[in-house]
Amino acid sequence: MPRYSTYNVNLNDMKTVGFIGLGSMGLPMSRHLLAAGFETRGFDLREPARAAFETAGGKAAASSADAARLADTLVLMVVNAAQVEDALFHDGALKALPEGATVILGSTCSPAFVRALAKRIQAAGRRFLDAPVSGGLVGAEAGTLTIMAAGPMDVFEAVLSILQSFGDQIFHVGTDPGQGAAMKTLNQLLCGVHAAAAAETLAFAEEMGVDGKMALQILTGSAAASWMLRDRGPRMMQAEPEVTSAVDIFVKDLGIVLDAGRDVKAALPLAAAAYQMFVSTSAGGGGRADDSQVIRSYRLLNGSRQRGESGD
Amino acid sequence: MPRYSTYNVNLNDMKTVGFIGLGSMGLPMSRHLLAAGFETRGFDLREPARAAFETAGGKAAASSADAARLADTLVLMVVNAAQVEDALFHDGALKALPEGATVILGSTCSPAFVRALAKRIQAAGRRFLDAPVSGGLVGAEAGTLTIMAAGPMDVFEAVLSILQSFGDQIFHVGTDPGQGAAMKTLNQLLCGVHAAAAAETLAFAEEMGVDGKMALQILTGSAAASWMLRDRGPRMMQAEPEVTSAVDIFVKDLGIVLDAGRDVKAALPLAAAAYQMFVSTSAGGGGRADDSQVIRSYRLLNGSRQRGESGD
Repeated sequence: MPRYSTYNVNLNDMKTVGFIGLGSMGLPMSRHLLAAGFETRGFDLREPARAAFETAGGKAAASSADAARLADTLVLMVVNAAQVEDALFHDGALKALPEGATVILGSTCSPAFVRALAKRIQAAGRRFLDAPVSGGLVGAEAGTLTIMAAGPMDVFEAVLSILQSFGDQIFHVGTDPGQGAAMKTLNQLLCGVHAAAAAETLAFAEEMGVDGKMALQILTGSAAASWMLRDRGPRMMQAEPEVTSAVDIFVKDLGIVLDAGRDVKAALPLAAAAYQMFVSTSAGGGGRADDSQVIRSYRLLNGSRQRGESGD
Repeated sequence: MPRYSTYNVNLNDMKTVGFIGLGSMGLPMSRHLLAAGFETRGFDLREPARAAFETAGGKAAASSADAARLADTLVLMVVNAAQVEDALFHDGALKALPEGATVILGSTCSPAFVRALAKRIQAAGRRFLDAPVSGGLVGAEAGTLTIMAAGPMDVFEAVLSILQSFGDQIFHVGTDPGQGAAMKTLNQLLCGVHAAAAAETLAFAEEMGVDGKMALQILTGSAAASWMLRDRGPRMMQAEPEVTSAVDIFVKDLGIVLDAGRDVKAALPLAAAAYQMFVSTSAGGGGRADDSQVIRSYRLLNGSRQRGESGD
């Protein structure tokens, strides 16, 4: 399977990009579009997000439909399937988008939702690319996201320069929309389980009297290593770390994983157990906290007080 | 915490090393001792293992006690605590070991067992270093194991050149034996959960019709990455891969993790779920298969036939 990191596309083919969803992922992604020279019209329901987009040099749209009106390509980077529905159908973005233009869905949604969405969009005479991303806030800021794109090859190639502006690992995983979402589902299964496993391990270290920083130093360099352990581990030892991705995002994404597992009849015992830990953290009031704070649920289970205060 | 990769010790301080347990880990480790110039007397209950050690240029001992008799340092790399008991106490290796010599325990045992063992060895006038390793067959062959050593600093420093012959990430994690075992317990929790999570993901990919090789290529380069996914993932797509570490080793090691969790009252839901999957694979006759074959239990749960035949 080719990786499209160095593919060349004529930027002149692209004129205007609409971008809906200027959140923690969408805002830095839209900044990369601006930096790459795309005329970008961004929209978010929250006024501060639109203001931040204008500060970055973009032109904020007045609505989802307004962002779509002049666009060749409309990127959706909203939180979930319900927001995709709202933006495209209730708020009229799909109707406002010129015929023949392309919708790129970057949000994480279930494969079943994406397959159905593709049909509705194609039936309306627009083109569609399923293109979920991985790499979090760090990848979005750096323009180094992994992109798992699925859709007809000509659609993929036509928008490749857009994907390249915010991603550096770009994969065309199949010609059928939903195949990207399936890959992202696998990705989120591992990310969610690895994050919960890191929390389980560091909370266990606390119970055994093992220094967490020493444990992290050793475990991130051994066969125990994971990307999530290295990235989230240090923030698990802080009481109120900066939020790079919220607990409720994993409640959503592991929910999608379990739904997709039910759809194809795959048993997912580890994903199910990890999901419970994120749900519990959210139940305890930590839904908007950084997802590293899933460790709070382990401390609760272990009958121990929160220990993060001394961390840094 | 300092890492002792470049520490210098006078090799002349060391004379003879006894090495008990010439298995998939012990044999390559003992080869590195021979290559580093240590006079090494190796023993294993299995004759073919002793023959392989002699082929590598070592002198095989006739018994555990015989391996210990002339040694300054006795390395134990047997499978579990029961074999440690047998070698040191029932077979007389500890009695045969000269007074003041040092026992290095490289095997993975529970922190509670290691603490008790240290007391018995020290009461007998010998010195003890708790020194479990991580990195598997690959690390043992390459001499790049991670070593988590705990014991008095003078004991650690006296045997450092031995550790350096087969490890390249050497940590002195504490002065109390058992602290190394605790770190190894954390390590095995993550390794076991990551291996089961990789199997859960690749079996799920099969159910969704996602190509496993493509999934591995993408997931090992994204936020979903783990050492175990990269190492074990390819062998999960083979029906009868080479055995680098057996399923029953994780049945043992995750059992130690859960025992240690009970001892300090730490809840370990992911480790418990992963443990069940390895137990199930062992129950199905796969105990001696490569631990990547934990994926068989997922395929069984998912009602699907084994798919590895077409792998390579």
